[in-house]
Amino acid sequence: MAKSKKIRIIPLGGLSEIGKNLTVVEFSDNILVIDCGIGFPSEDMLGVDLVMPDITYLVNNSEKIKGIVLTHGHEDHIGGLPYFLSQINVPVYGTRLTLGIVEEKLAEHRLDKKAELICVRAGDRIDIGLFNVEFINVNHSIADAVALCIRTPGGTLVHSGDFKIDATPIDGEMTDLTRFGEIGREGVKLFMCESTNVERPGFTPSERTVGESLNGFFVKYPEKRIIITTFSSNVHRVQQIINSAENHKRKVAITGRSMINIVKAATDLGYMRIPEGIIVDISEISKYPPNKTVIISTGSQGEPMSALYRMTFNLHDKIGLGPDDLVIISASAIPGNEKSVGDIINELFRKGVKVVNEDIADVHVSGHACAGEIKILHALLKPQFFMPVHGEYRHLAAHKELAEYMGMKPSRIFVSEIGKVLEIDGSAAKFNGTVQSGRVLVDGYGIGDVGSVVLRDRKRLSEDGIVIVSASVALFEQAIVSGPEIATRGFVYARESDELMNGAEKVCVAALSDCLDRGVTDLNQIRLRVKDDLARYISQKTKRKPIVLPMITEAV
Amino acid sequence: MAKSKKIRIIPLGGLSEIGKNLTVVEFSDNILVIDCGIGFPSEDMLGVDLVMPDITYLVNNSEKIKGIVLTHGHEDHIGGLPYFLSQINVPVYGTRLTLGIVEEKLAEHRLDKKAELICVRAGDRIDIGLFNVEFINVNHSIADAVALCIRTPGGTLVHSGDFKIDATPIDGEMTDLTRFGEIGREGVKLFMCESTNVERPGFTPSERTVGESLNGFFVKYPEKRIIITTFSSNVHRVQQIINSAENHKRKVAITGRSMINIVKAATDLGYMRIPEGIIVDISEISKYPPNKTVIISTGSQGEPMSALYRMTFNLHDKIGLGPDDLVIISASAIPGNEKSVGDIINELFRKGVKVVNEDIADVHVSGHACAGEIKILHALLKPQFFMPVHGEYRHLAAHKELAEYMGMKPSRIFVSEIGKVLEIDGSAAKFNGTVQSGRVLVDGYGIGDVGSVVLRDRKRLSEDGIVIVSASVALFEQAIVSGPEIATRGFVYARESDELMNGAEKVCVAALSDCLDRGVTDLNQIRLRVKDDLARYISQKTKRKPIVLPMITEAV
Repeated sequence: MAKSKKIRIIPLGGLSEIGKNLTVVEFSDNILVIDCGIGFPSEDMLGVDLVMPDITYLVNNSEKIKGIVLTHGHEDHIGGLPYFLSQINVPVYGTRLTLGIVEEKLAEHRLDKKAELICVRAGDRIDIGLFNVEFINVNHSIADAVALCIRTPGGTLVHSGDFKIDATPIDGEMTDLTRFGEIGREGVKLFMCESTNVERPGFTPSERTVGESLNGFFVKYPEKRIIITTFSSNVHRVQQIINSAENHKRKVAITGRSMINIVKAATDLGYMRIPEGIIVDISEISKYPPNKTVIISTGSQGEPMSALYRMTFNLHDKIGLGPDDLVIISASAIPGNEKSVGDIINELFRKGVKVVNEDIADVHVSGHACAGEIKILHALLKPQFFMPVHGEYRHLAAHKELAEYMGMKPSRIFVSEIGKVLEIDGSAAKFNGTVQSGRVLVDGYGIGDVGSVVLRDRKRLSEDGIVIVSASVALFEQAIVSGPEIATRGFVYARESDELMNGAEKVCVAALSDCLDRGVTDLNQIRLRVKDDLARYISQKTKRKPIVLPMITEAV
Repeated sequence: MAKSKKIRIIPLGGLSEIGKNLTVVEFSDNILVIDCGIGFPSEDMLGVDLVMPDITYLVNNSEKIKGIVLTHGHEDHIGGLPYFLSQINVPVYGTRLTLGIVEEKLAEHRLDKKAELICVRAGDRIDIGLFNVEFINVNHSIADAVALCIRTPGGTLVHSGDFKIDATPIDGEMTDLTRFGEIGREGVKLFMCESTNVERPGFTPSERTVGESLNGFFVKYPEKRIIITTFSSNVHRVQQIINSAENHKRKVAITGRSMINIVKAATDLGYMRIPEGIIVDISEISKYPPNKTVIISTGSQGEPMSALYRMTFNLHDKIGLGPDDLVIISASAIPGNEKSVGDIINELFRKGVKVVNEDIADVHVSGHACAGEIKILHALLKPQFFMPVHGEYRHLAAHKELAEYMGMKPSRIFVSEIGKVLEIDGSAAKFNGTVQSGRVLVDGYGIGDVGSVVLRDRKRLSEDGIVIVSASVALFEQAIVSGPEIATRGFVYARESDELMNGAEKVCVAALSDCLDRGVTDLNQIRLRVKDDLARYISQKTKRKPIVLPMITEAV
């Protein structure tokens, strides 16, 4: 096969879904990978810990891969690296904070010695194989985020990463609109842009507005202890809380493992400024007057056993909450977490705690661009082709509408899906085929060993439980040697269902005896008969459909 | 025990929770029950169909119960009646539409012949035992809703039911503020008021605004077929859609069992006006030009196998959707249903369907009063005592704040909980003791046989599955007669996990042999040993914790 001179763009995650972002860029026999994220399991993925993109295509082409470039340090962009690097070891490029977080993650998987991490800064231009990659400063809800300008012999690609435009960021500079404009002037073949908030008109407010709002509560409630929970990776949010504490002469304690880790990392790397002597260990904080203290905590999603959860439900060994406390939830609930957060709020009310969340005050802003900001990037880059990324289908469709509204021809817009290959050849672009893609479920140590059969069983088990019949038979003596014994789990409380259990046993004895009496010697036939009879009996008596498992063995 | 002359108020549901509303009112040896609702299972109640209030207290005092009064026909107010009436047969009082819905429900449970249903109208005053009950017209998202004024020898109680104040209702009259005012002048001992929307300031918009908004889409999209989904019990919403269809000369088809039932019932009872010839059977609708038709559908919560779900995912035998269709979701997602609704929206976008929901346009309003409306009732009734009802704890707490803001003394406000007895004696009120209360889980035919043990097992089964070892042993011959055989469900895909399964079998053989060799004759001891060894092995190999169930029987 002749080597292709076309640019090929293959998303392996992040399209028609939120999370597990991974995009493949190919030119000739060079592959560059953008991000390597994980997704979180949906409700129907029972017991699954996390979801990886299927990277079979990359494994099969691993000798072509020149490197992975990371846009920022959130899980949906870096969380898959340990699984990726254990299969394909290639250099990883990222900014300082991003790599700081990656290092810690790799250490947990004992991959830190093996991986080659290459630190870059916004403004750097680096050759990676045939690709020249420029890192462009953008604002996001984590520091040190970048967009990517990837120059290939076939033309220039721009990937926005996750971004917003914050003219008054807490640290560093506004999203580098000048560079976007200059690159736009040079000419952009393809723009890939995130779509998370594209349905929202206007502009996302500045992170600074949150700081002002939070500070207002320090002014308004001088008599209360203040507890604030937020995403631990939002170092700018944490910095603003510490600034307010400093201004109001309050000591700060930090609780929750990930919050402690990130504050340490961000401080070591210079992304956070901690005034001398302001931090107090959580075990010492009660030595100060409560209204002279602030506690910064994990648990903004109501996660069980997070620091906020433990403080709320009296499970925290250092801190309990009551009427003298103000709890500020400086985050929005990720869809699916509303109930966990609601449970915490109800319990806090019950304890007389004053609670503030984003419904009541402006204590959170998104890290993602709204339609107004997205339009600015489109206007600066004026790309020849456009592919919306990072969003459910509705977001991608809305992003297509936005691009059309800005004057782009529909034929130049490519709403893609994972595994679908977009081929750009000079001034032509088209979809051309697919590669293997999908999701790989990670459960404990197992990667990919939980499939649809296992999930279907888990669902049924979760709804109606399981009924097991154990018996041993002597086929040729036509006798039941032991059992039948019936056990259930997740079905009914067996000790209070004697009648049902006795009836079930009779059904099994009858089925076994009938088979044996008729001289049936095929164990599977006997198993099927017992299973069918028992399932019918249970369904009639209870209107439930547990899994019925006959464990009939032959006595030897 | 001397007969008490105090009024006792005992909520058995609806406090610190949404749903399963049931309140007990006692005077002397007379009991009146207000509503008998069900709740919907939360995520941790795996496999549970619905949740009933624990009515043990009422069963134990059934000879005192004079009747049940119903405020309106929603499931959280009437859904428990079949379970209640099958245990305690007392007269049920309700308005015409409410009883129409109740009758259908009782017929499903074959209780319709047995139950005594007594039809009342707003404005009626009826003696029920020692109680005189007045039914007061209120607006809500279902027709024929009432509040209750209950006069007892110990004073007058008012229960708001679910309400809003709609000055321009679609049918009938505005909430009867005049009667509330007159009753307030007479003097109210205790006001029980719903709290659903108390955290929202201002007023809930009129149902009429939804009709105007919906009509705007008929004007804006004359070329499209229009599909509208809403709660089937909202007959006024359905009426407004039919009105718009009439004005725009479109035929109407109705799909979804509950929507068909309610339209029939509401029309028969005179709550809906269907213009002659406008309704067409769903199987005939495609004979008309699509842009001259409207389809009214169930499925506003994204329920699997609802009519909208089936139309969206090509499972409906009559209707498929495409780019010529406009789907309007005239409802808000009940917490927990966001993902199901989102899945439908994404699929509709994928099919090129134009989708409108309440994020985009005013196509839904709540049926519950906001803080402004709630304040009006408080101002009219000027009760001596107040108990917020119908809400999570945060709502009850916010409602208490509202009452204090209106000048009520905190000592006169009783934030109660289920099972807690409020005693009113002349001008004194206090909590005094508790009665049995809680939740009863209904799963299939089983009422109350699924408890915490079963739910805990279902949860564990849903996360890591189950591993079963079956074996038969001859204790005194010290021999394994059959097995060990290992089966799994919801654990790993066993056919692709040979190594793990072989290892597990070896562990079991070793454990059994060791026990038998050592002359252990206690079967339970052997089971425990096998279970422990196997669980340890599995945890080491997979980092998972399935239920391990040893089915070891003795060969006879």
